[in-house]
Amino acid sequence: MRSTPTRFLSYINSHLSAAASLASSSKMKLLYPTSLKLDVSQIEGFPSVTLHPYDVKAPIPEEHVDAEVLVTWTNSSDNLKDAVNRLTKLRWIQSLAAGPNDVLSAGFDTSKVAVTTGSGLHDRTVAEHTLGLLLNSARRFYEMRDYQLQGKWPGHLGGPQPDRPSDRFTTLRDARVLIWGFGNIAKTLTPSLVQLGSQVRGVARRQGVRDGIEVYSEDKLAELLPETDALVMILPGDPSTKHALNAERLKLLPKHAWVVNVGRGTSVDEDALYDALVEERIGGAALDVFETEPLPEPSKLWKAPNLILSPHAAGGRPQGAEQLIVENLRRFLAGQQLKNLI
Amino acid sequence: MRSTPTRFLSYINSHLSAAASLASSSKMKLLYPTSLKLDVSQIEGFPSVTLHPYDVKAPIPEEHVDAEVLVTWTNSSDNLKDAVNRLTKLRWIQSLAAGPNDVLSAGFDTSKVAVTTGSGLHDRTVAEHTLGLLLNSARRFYEMRDYQLQGKWPGHLGGPQPDRPSDRFTTLRDARVLIWGFGNIAKTLTPSLVQLGSQVRGVARRQGVRDGIEVYSEDKLAELLPETDALVMILPGDPSTKHALNAERLKLLPKHAWVVNVGRGTSVDEDALYDALVEERIGGAALDVFETEPLPEPSKLWKAPNLILSPHAAGGRPQGAEQLIVENLRRFLAGQQLKNLI
Repeated sequence: MRSTPTRFLSYINSHLSAAASLASSSKMKLLYPTSLKLDVSQIEGFPSVTLHPYDVKAPIPEEHVDAEVLVTWTNSSDNLKDAVNRLTKLRWIQSLAAGPNDVLSAGFDTSKVAVTTGSGLHDRTVAEHTLGLLLNSARRFYEMRDYQLQGKWPGHLGGPQPDRPSDRFTTLRDARVLIWGFGNIAKTLTPSLVQLGSQVRGVARRQGVRDGIEVYSEDKLAELLPETDALVMILPGDPSTKHALNAERLKLLPKHAWVVNVGRGTSVDEDALYDALVEERIGGAALDVFETEPLPEPSKLWKAPNLILSPHAAGGRPQGAEQLIVENLRRFLAGQQLKNLI
Repeated sequence: MRSTPTRFLSYINSHLSAAASLASSSKMKLLYPTSLKLDVSQIEGFPSVTLHPYDVKAPIPEEHVDAEVLVTWTNSSDNLKDAVNRLTKLRWIQSLAAGPNDVLSAGFDTSKVAVTTGSGLHDRTVAEHTLGLLLNSARRFYEMRDYQLQGKWPGHLGGPQPDRPSDRFTTLRDARVLIWGFGNIAKTLTPSLVQLGSQVRGVARRQGVRDGIEVYSEDKLAELLPETDALVMILPGDPSTKHALNAERLKLLPKHAWVVNVGRGTSVDEDALYDALVEERIGGAALDVFETEPLPEPSKLWKAPNLILSPHAAGGRPQGAEQLIVENLRRFLAGQQLKNLI
């Protein structure tokens, strides 16, 4: 996700000429989406920029095809294909999605158009949802619900209980939580886990201590997985992470361990996960993402034991988009490298 | 729950004579329950005390009727009645329950027997469960479960969502959380809420700032309830709290507000709550406690809309019991006032 020096130079060059043309003549046009509530007043105040709302599900209006900046959020693929063909002056797309696969696959000429992501806008919402899924798993709210729907009191889940039994995941206190994919979401989640008494470790491509948490490289997984009560996966959806959690690695987890996935569905081998659940080789799984979404009707996962299904609900509501747009607009006008540049 | 000076003096007097008799002759006998896993090695090392396990569901063994200290946890009422009659030398009962109604109603002569509670041993477990119920409410895991069980993708709960809409409780970030009953559990819960971005206020008999949180007196409820997105109730079960949340106060809550009760069931008027849920005058309720437990089969609450049922599962696993027993044993032997004395 890092730009090469060559690409960045070409971007700078094209930008400098854009800035020069700006100085001499007309204002730069930024199109912002009406698919979310933006506080546009926070983006105003750039004398050289005009702001225009647009419908992300319709063709770009004829009077705006001279736009140089496009902010995207839940655009239809038709809208993006239209933008590829008709926004001939486009220089920069600011997506508000963390992983803007829609923009990248639409066919923009990335030698001319810089694409920046909404990375960071979803950290808090995804971290909160992840914490909720972990507590749902440990406290077995899903099982309580099953009983409630049948009008039965789930007495075995209430009243006196063993405290922190070593062979079950019942609480985050003293739980060994391993976060695989230790980026900004993990950093946002970790203080909540530490507050509740969890022992948090991370796995990422590069090892090191981040925000006080020991982060290991992936070649340590064989040692880490057997020491894990809850595995939280926050991996991106690129080919390198395909089936990162496979049958072999699932076998390394303790029998009581839970898997929580809020990254991308492709990072988990769902067939292998299903087998592990049915054979009770793991404690359970809470999934917010799936290999195919919505989860297809014939999928075995619907009825897998101890499987908590969440419909890609962790993020989906960018927070702080205005600040990111403003910061990148300043950088753009100043000829600096953009934040979250792909 | 505070001891009167008179009662404390009489307790001290009886204790001093006990200490005198100890010094001269035999050791003091402490009976500890086998109904939970205690690390007895942490309680050892008192030269004047001997430790003996006992079954909380059976009569006290004949050889232990001379015990002076009884630690209780989930004792049967028959066991406690037996102890009243046969433990004639009993001086002190250390309950591990936060509210030891079982001990108090068994008929011990409290002018001779000091009773101390397990207050503090449940703070972290109850706080964690409360956080889980709040996230279950905001993130609607219970509704996702209903869909999953029917093999339906709850698409309306996933994908792009409005961020922090003012007319719904969808996240703890910026949520106005009011904690009614601001004791140690509330103090333990609050840092997790603040970490997630909630605006926390408290209500208690005495107003003031506690651990950085503004705590109001109950006469301010009429002003506070309309400004609440989530009301967390952690009130004890004494007569003064009966139906504290009644029809009138429920009407003061915003239409989207949630009620979470982890205190005692009697503090909520369940009929009034049911009406508020059915008439959609509140957003929902997550209850860990009920007026009658288990919730009776004919109760309307089972099928009330947006009602999350948890079977008195928040606590039930004392943590740090050994340290409390040791501290109180030291105080007892030193003739000092006991901690958590009723």
